[in-house]
Amino acid sequence: MTIKVRNTLSNKKEEFYPQRENFVSMYVCGITPYDEVHLGHARVYVVFDIVKRHLLRRGYIVKHVQNFTDVDDKIIKRSQEKNMKPSELAQIYIEDYFVQAGRLNILKAEKYPRVTQMIPEIINFIKDLVSKGFAYKLGGDIYFSVEKFKDYGKLSKRNLKDLRAGARVDVCDGKNSAFDFALWKNTKENEPREVVWESPWGKGRPGWHIECSVMSSELLGNTIDIHGGGQDLIFPHHENEIAQSEAKTGKQFVKYWIHNGFVTINKEKMSKSLNNFFTLKAIFEKYSPRVVRYYLLMQQYSSPLDFSDAGIESAKNTLQGMDDTYLRLISSVKESAAEITDKDLSDLQENFLNALDDNFNSEKALSYLHELKGLISKGLLIAGRERLSQLKKLFEDFAGTSLGIVLPEEQNTDESLQNLLKERNDARKNKNWAESDRLRKLIDEKGYKISDNKDGSSLLVKKV
Amino acid sequence: MTIKVRNTLSNKKEEFYPQRENFVSMYVCGITPYDEVHLGHARVYVVFDIVKRHLLRRGYIVKHVQNFTDVDDKIIKRSQEKNMKPSELAQIYIEDYFVQAGRLNILKAEKYPRVTQMIPEIINFIKDLVSKGFAYKLGGDIYFSVEKFKDYGKLSKRNLKDLRAGARVDVCDGKNSAFDFALWKNTKENEPREVVWESPWGKGRPGWHIECSVMSSELLGNTIDIHGGGQDLIFPHHENEIAQSEAKTGKQFVKYWIHNGFVTINKEKMSKSLNNFFTLKAIFEKYSPRVVRYYLLMQQYSSPLDFSDAGIESAKNTLQGMDDTYLRLISSVKESAAEITDKDLSDLQENFLNALDDNFNSEKALSYLHELKGLISKGLLIAGRERLSQLKKLFEDFAGTSLGIVLPEEQNTDESLQNLLKERNDARKNKNWAESDRLRKLIDEKGYKISDNKDGSSLLVKKV
Repeated sequence: MTIKVRNTLSNKKEEFYPQRENFVSMYVCGITPYDEVHLGHARVYVVFDIVKRHLLRRGYIVKHVQNFTDVDDKIIKRSQEKNMKPSELAQIYIEDYFVQAGRLNILKAEKYPRVTQMIPEIINFIKDLVSKGFAYKLGGDIYFSVEKFKDYGKLSKRNLKDLRAGARVDVCDGKNSAFDFALWKNTKENEPREVVWESPWGKGRPGWHIECSVMSSELLGNTIDIHGGGQDLIFPHHENEIAQSEAKTGKQFVKYWIHNGFVTINKEKMSKSLNNFFTLKAIFEKYSPRVVRYYLLMQQYSSPLDFSDAGIESAKNTLQGMDDTYLRLISSVKESAAEITDKDLSDLQENFLNALDDNFNSEKALSYLHELKGLISKGLLIAGRERLSQLKKLFEDFAGTSLGIVLPEEQNTDESLQNLLKERNDARKNKNWAESDRLRKLIDEKGYKISDNKDGSSLLVKKV
Repeated sequence: MTIKVRNTLSNKKEEFYPQRENFVSMYVCGITPYDEVHLGHARVYVVFDIVKRHLLRRGYIVKHVQNFTDVDDKIIKRSQEKNMKPSELAQIYIEDYFVQAGRLNILKAEKYPRVTQMIPEIINFIKDLVSKGFAYKLGGDIYFSVEKFKDYGKLSKRNLKDLRAGARVDVCDGKNSAFDFALWKNTKENEPREVVWESPWGKGRPGWHIECSVMSSELLGNTIDIHGGGQDLIFPHHENEIAQSEAKTGKQFVKYWIHNGFVTINKEKMSKSLNNFFTLKAIFEKYSPRVVRYYLLMQQYSSPLDFSDAGIESAKNTLQGMDDTYLRLISSVKESAAEITDKDLSDLQENFLNALDDNFNSEKALSYLHELKGLISKGLLIAGRERLSQLKKLFEDFAGTSLGIVLPEEQNTDESLQNLLKERNDARKNKNWAESDRLRKLIDEKGYKISDNKDGSSLLVKKV
């Protein structure tokens, strides 16, 4: 077997060869905990849960790292509205994440790093970029200079010329390039003290993109096997991660980039800005997490998923059918009484022959033929083909060979009879008892008995 | 194994050891072909057919001889009434015998000797008895002198003293003993020329008993393993056979004497004299030979069988049930589509894993989970326990391990629910659809779905 992965970097499906033979390092961008997780998040984390489960199933040791962006403009704004510390707000929604992810049966990552626990490593990483000339100071901020990184745009397949052409030029912006991005942000007025850190460039906090470069290199090494997230992160977030990491290490940052398709609702991308996001909490009031997970699996991860009630309803019905079948299966397997053993058959044969050995007792032999008949009736429900063949052989040995009872033959020649039988079974299905009785009588007059099998099928037995 | 036989001679059940290790010689007294065979005959020949089949089943080579008494007072009388030759009449009823015995599926004997084909051997046998002093001439007849044979009565457990006491003494009878019997009968007036043979004692024909002694020694040797017939033949026929044969050879005539019980009709012995015999031809118009054979097997051979319509009707129903079960069995075995092979499962597993290998395609993987579901539904009808366990393992591997779908658990805790389910199933059995719907709704309101198995059983599935 070879696993193949659609790699956003090459835009091709590639054979998957991690750096180490049986070990896979995987970094998945986590949530910014300033609100409840929604269906869009659910898809990302279910998709990478499938990736992880399959890698494990195929025998890899998987180290999976997923971050929490617990310092961010939105967190600060929302925490101020709610008169909370940012850390308190973040903690609430980090816990919400674990609750909902648990309900979706998503395997835990090996590490869940948070920005607030990585500040020294982030500062060192930025210092290194500055000293290597990839970053510059502007006011109290540090910016990454995209012009200095020759491969900029290789993931999102853009180049700076096109970007410039398409970009609104902000006159008040002193950046070398409109696409330079902040690695370190100078503390603004009335930002909570909690999100203010000392740095070589004065008080401030990290920009968004830097954390992932730092966390992945710290926890998984300079080159990682899989980096994943939603398509919406390809540009600028992941593009910028590549710039930061490869500028610093000179090594390839990620071997395989995996991005899942958007979740749209009535074809509109799901997001907070548009007021169309479904929180999982809300969805789970209507659909169980099992149904939601099943629904998310129904569309291959790379395609967009357009949420619809019809879709999730059908997922619900399908899953109900699965449960139904599975429960019938385990009840059948548990039904140990149903088993017919080799010993049952050999004992029965011994008893049968002993009955005839004992002064040719046909009366007693018949009683064992009856026991065999009972086993056969049971066997028709629970025994496999091989066992049924043994039962057949035994019946023919008892009734045919030893007792000389001519065995009946299947009656499947007369087409008109078969048609009558079909009509009668249809009538029966439609609960048209009068009609089915009428047809049964007709068949009876032709000298046949109808034998209805437990499985709903029927056959004709010539009357003796 | 040891076969045990109830031996009329010892009046005990004895272990069966034929003279030769793997060979059994068996002589069964056949019919006198002057009328159609009846139920009494059917029993004798079915009983010894079971004896023969079981000896064969146990690995013996069986040489079975059964005679036709084609010279006899009754044949002569009846043929004269019908203006036929005795041989013509006999031939008609010999053919009737083969037709009816064939319909009863009775195995053919190895030899069917007829008196008319054994005359020289019979005459020699009688000459030998005369010369040894066991027989004497009276008029043109030759009689066997029972007083001369010391063991006379050993089979029927009588002795001559008692016999004499019980016998009407025929004054006009010149026999030494009232129980002396004719070996050779002088030709009377207007007997058909066809049944007249020259002999040392003038024109005549054999008596009844002599033929069996001659035929068995000629075809099976002086001592035979099994001699059989109906109980009514024990005295005088078989008693006289012993006297003739052992007087001539000085050897034991028969090792094991087997006699089947009478057939009575409303407790009266079946015979021509009483007008209560059923010809097979007549019975077969109402009951198939298979039913008649089955009926005869239902009573151990040594017990009397009292014919009753109730009895044969129940045999008919039982046999119908046997046919029904057997036909369902062979249709299940033939249903080759029903088979689930190891390859089915390994292919399915390979396809499932390949789907996930190919860029983690959960959509495609689900389609194979559906295929598995189909196999399971089929398996619930036709697969054995081991196969069902494999299907269960595979389902848990696909849905649980790889796709992370939490598997449902059996809902068999809530007793009140189980009772509702039971009530609803009873209502259903009684075709009380309104009530069963009402109960289904009740169960539905409690959050459960009813899953009806093909085998009529039901279980509860929690709604997803």
